Amino acid sequence: MKELKDLQLLIDNAVTRLNYPVYPAELYEPINYILSMGGKRMRPALLLMACDLFGGDVEKALPPALAIEVFHNFTLMHDDIMDNAPLRRGRVTVHERWNQNAAILSGDVMLIEGYKLMMQVEDRLLRVILDIFNKTAIGVCEGQQLDMDFEVRNDVKIDEYIYMIRLKTAVVLGGALKIGSILGGADMKDAELISEFGENLGLAFQLQDDILDVYGSPEKFGKQVGGDIISNKKTHLLIKALELADANQTIELNSWITLKQFVPQEKVTAVTSIYNTLQVRQYAETTMHTYADKAFEALEKINLPEENKQYLRDFADGLMVREY
Amino acid sequence: MKELKDLQLLIDNAVTRLNYPVYPAELYEPINYILSMGGKRMRPALLLMACDLFGGDVEKALPPALAIEVFHNFTLMHDDIMDNAPLRRGRVTVHERWNQNAAILSGDVMLIEGYKLMMQVEDRLLRVILDIFNKTAIGVCEGQQLDMDFEVRNDVKIDEYIYMIRLKTAVVLGGALKIGSILGGADMKDAELISEFGENLGLAFQLQDDILDVYGSPEKFGKQVGGDIISNKKTHLLIKALELADANQTIELNSWITLKQFVPQEKVTAVTSIYNTLQVRQYAETTMHTYADKAFEALEKINLPEENKQYLRDFADGLMVREY
Repeated sequence: MKELKDLQLLIDNAVTRLNYPVYPAELYEPINYILSMGGKRMRPALLLMACDLFGGDVEKALPPALAIEVFHNFTLMHDDIMDNAPLRRGRVTVHERWNQNAAILSGDVMLIEGYKLMMQVEDRLLRVILDIFNKTAIGVCEGQQLDMDFEVRNDVKIDEYIYMIRLKTAVVLGGALKIGSILGGADMKDAELISEFGENLGLAFQLQDDILDVYGSPEKFGKQVGGDIISNKKTHLLIKALELADANQTIELNSWITLKQFVPQEKVTAVTSIYNTLQVRQYAETTMHTYADKAFEALEKINLPEENKQYLRDFADGLMVREY
Repeated sequence: MKELKDLQLLIDNAVTRLNYPVYPAELYEPINYILSMGGKRMRPALLLMACDLFGGDVEKALPPALAIEVFHNFTLMHDDIMDNAPLRRGRVTVHERWNQNAAILSGDVMLIEGYKLMMQVEDRLLRVILDIFNKTAIGVCEGQQLDMDFEVRNDVKIDEYIYMIRLKTAVVLGGALKIGSILGGADMKDAELISEFGENLGLAFQLQDDILDVYGSPEKFGKQVGGDIISNKKTHLLIKALELADANQTIELNSWITLKQFVPQEKVTAVTSIYNTLQVRQYAETTMHTYADKAFEALEKINLPEENKQYLRDFADGLMVREY
């Protein structure tokens, strides 16, 4: 089996070989720009990994893997407009560097280019692969819409939150693994199982991210602690806290949420203190473990040699942090 | 052969049967809204017409025809954001009625839904149909980008303008006819010819539109005369006038173009007077006839019974106005 970092490198090199026209410049330059920003290339690497695990040729799976990466970057380009984000991976976003219209239209072209790449598969697989791609793409758009809807609601339930992050972040991991496995020769049963593995692992990973944002050590994870608290992001922790809070805690939480002027560290400390009292971290961890367990259960059912399953187990273990 | 108005009605009814989810509401309501605005359904009707002319079953061609209509409305939804348009067909645009983010994301979903509909063809035709669809879609995006680029340039050449309107408006007519003909059983040679017919007819039609905007009688065409002049739209007429103008005429044209406060009728009268002096209408008519001739030449080469060709000739004659 090929190592993950080698697969990521394969993608990185293939991305630089994507050759978009130079004219009209404002349409294609943003595409080259956002694709050159790098990132971990995790989604396309997962596609190649699944293909490899089922005995397929990763070179032949490169165009669909690139399709997933181009599609992912299309969603980033449009999400950044919607979220009004000035920066992405430390660099100026497309709508800021060019303008909003360029970001809309270049994003549209990326979605179409994603289809063109995804079509570079054998005829007999074309329809099944595109069906998965369509379903994944619609899911991601629905997830983004729900994420925006939830920003202006204070009554979001945990189930709704799980439903949203499943669509916004998990289905594309499942979809990438599913497509890769089919390209590698998996039957539909195994393709479904590896998709289930990826989707549930994606959920567990997102929940871990929620927890680490508050409880992770900044030295280890290189992120500002409490960023989600500062921006009122409706994570598992906040939703659970709003659900469990008594009258006084509700007032305190809502006053921090609505406050426009505040010292960030004070807000983080105060909200974290409520989280601690309500033990919301434990609830989030329980949910996280539920989905990690589901992922491992699906994995065990896949019809693959023990060695290949161990590869997937190691990969999942690597994603899930043991110490904070 | 089925009459055009019957094909348009078929589309209209099929559009109302498109059944999008109700949740998330802000994602799907704008899709139902823009599709319910009506319009002439000309692009999907052309697809059905080509299918019918080559002996195909128009009922089976309905999903790809709807794909063209959904795709077209996706471009309208995004173009309206980019053009900052408050109204479309007399009704409030999606980004105005909901918000910009809804218009971006609903448009994205429409593009994906377009692919889903376009895939409802026989396996043996799937790749060839999607290849045409991809090419058409990329062309339309490039055309929109060039149209925006040209707005801020004063040195656009006629050739560039033709290149732009070919992409922005003509390729989708050619693409619709090509897909329809293939679904009807045409070989690639005839599919290419009917596409050439449609693309060139589309160019001629757009050039006629440029001319009618200035020289058409408002009673006959129901449009405000001179709308393009008022908004400084770079039509064939204006581009040719800027090309032919002497020093004084250049100064006068540019002063009208840059003027922020003016009486509309005065601007229309003054610019039309320069157009008349420079005889730009004749130039535009010559170009228009060139493309109409190309359309008819392609038509004659199509391997279809005389009766079916006559249908296409009548259709083209109906589009091209004889009297202004």
